[in-house]
Amino acid sequence: MSAASAEPARRPRRPSGGPGPLLEVAVAEFNTRGYDATSMEDLSRAAGITKSSFYHHFAGKEALLRAALERALDGLFGVLAEPGASAGSPSERLRHIVRGQVRVLMTDLSYVTLLLRVRGNTETERWALERRRAFDAEITALVRQAVEAGEVRAGIEPALAARLLSGLVNSVAEWYRPGRPGSGTLPDDVARAVFEGILPAA
Amino acid sequence: MSAASAEPARRPRRPSGGPGPLLEVAVAEFNTRGYDATSMEDLSRAAGITKSSFYHHFAGKEALLRAALERALDGLFGVLAEPGASAGSPSERLRHIVRGQVRVLMTDLSYVTLLLRVRGNTETERWALERRRAFDAEITALVRQAVEAGEVRAGIEPALAARLLSGLVNSVAEWYRPGRPGSGTLPDDVARAVFEGILPAA
Repeated sequence: MSAASAEPARRPRRPSGGPGPLLEVAVAEFNTRGYDATSMEDLSRAAGITKSSFYHHFAGKEALLRAALERALDGLFGVLAEPGASAGSPSERLRHIVRGQVRVLMTDLSYVTLLLRVRGNTETERWALERRRAFDAEITALVRQAVEAGEVRAGIEPALAARLLSGLVNSVAEWYRPGRPGSGTLPDDVARAVFEGILPAA
Repeated sequence: MSAASAEPARRPRRPSGGPGPLLEVAVAEFNTRGYDATSMEDLSRAAGITKSSFYHHFAGKEALLRAALERALDGLFGVLAEPGASAGSPSERLRHIVRGQVRVLMTDLSYVTLLLRVRGNTETERWALERRRAFDAEITALVRQAVEAGEVRAGIEPALAARLLSGLVNSVAEWYRPGRPGSGTLPDDVARAVFEGILPAA
């Protein structure tokens, strides 16, 4: 109810020496409370610093959201920029991209989770949705190429395949937690599920 | 700001003659605003009736949530009770269940969407999560049986396969909209993706 800056500073969850850790704290709060329901008071309280220290690093809540979504999107577009994403047949490129997407999701789980929850209520959210659509369009185009090259069984509707592909990959964010045993093979497991089935015949 | 019952009744979105249409209105509001952020005022305003008329049908917000989640869960457990879910090999049963899950999702999209967003903040939500877990446990057990029967390629970790399976099926709720062309084959398309891959080799 009272301004956070008037309250005694709580013990910080982690060192809050720069923008990186603050961003981490903000993303955790956004994911827990929802972006709309999180105030700069909530954020500075969670980080254990004053609001004015927070504003020293970020112009406001939307700047934090933008930085967080940028990190997730940079990771995903970074995969598309890797040599493996443009070398080889469309199928090989798709396999590389799927593995890369899962790796980004595992490395930057909270950032990708935030990205997947974006609904388009602010300018930053609409920008992020636009970038997600651009990413998905690249995947759909590649699926189309794989079908046209005869690498993927005809009869698969490329737009539907791309939606299912994205749905499968992104669903990992709902249950994956860092340090889960057996996670090392997860990128390959998901890629195999895409090309051979989740329950392939023996 | 003032109580909804003191405001002039708005034109109802649909006939509000009984609990069914009210439930439909409530689910739409819950999905748009989020359950926590929706008040009985919001609901009676959206339904175009007074709060007391609303309370005539439902004891309160949580009763509405429970009725909505029950509908989604009854649909899903209804699939498990179908003859096709217990006849045939584990793989055949799984194929039947996947198709049925997609059909329920298409028929009761808003109810299933609400179920998939449940986070466990209220007793009703925790009950629904418990039921979802029970459903998932049945699927995991069937996947295990399929692996043990040698129908599914060994090396697939049943718990992971079940998670990916549920992730793939549920992701359909994020983009499917009733009346979408080509939807008729969606249950079979998803089942094929599960057993042959989203991008099966030609």
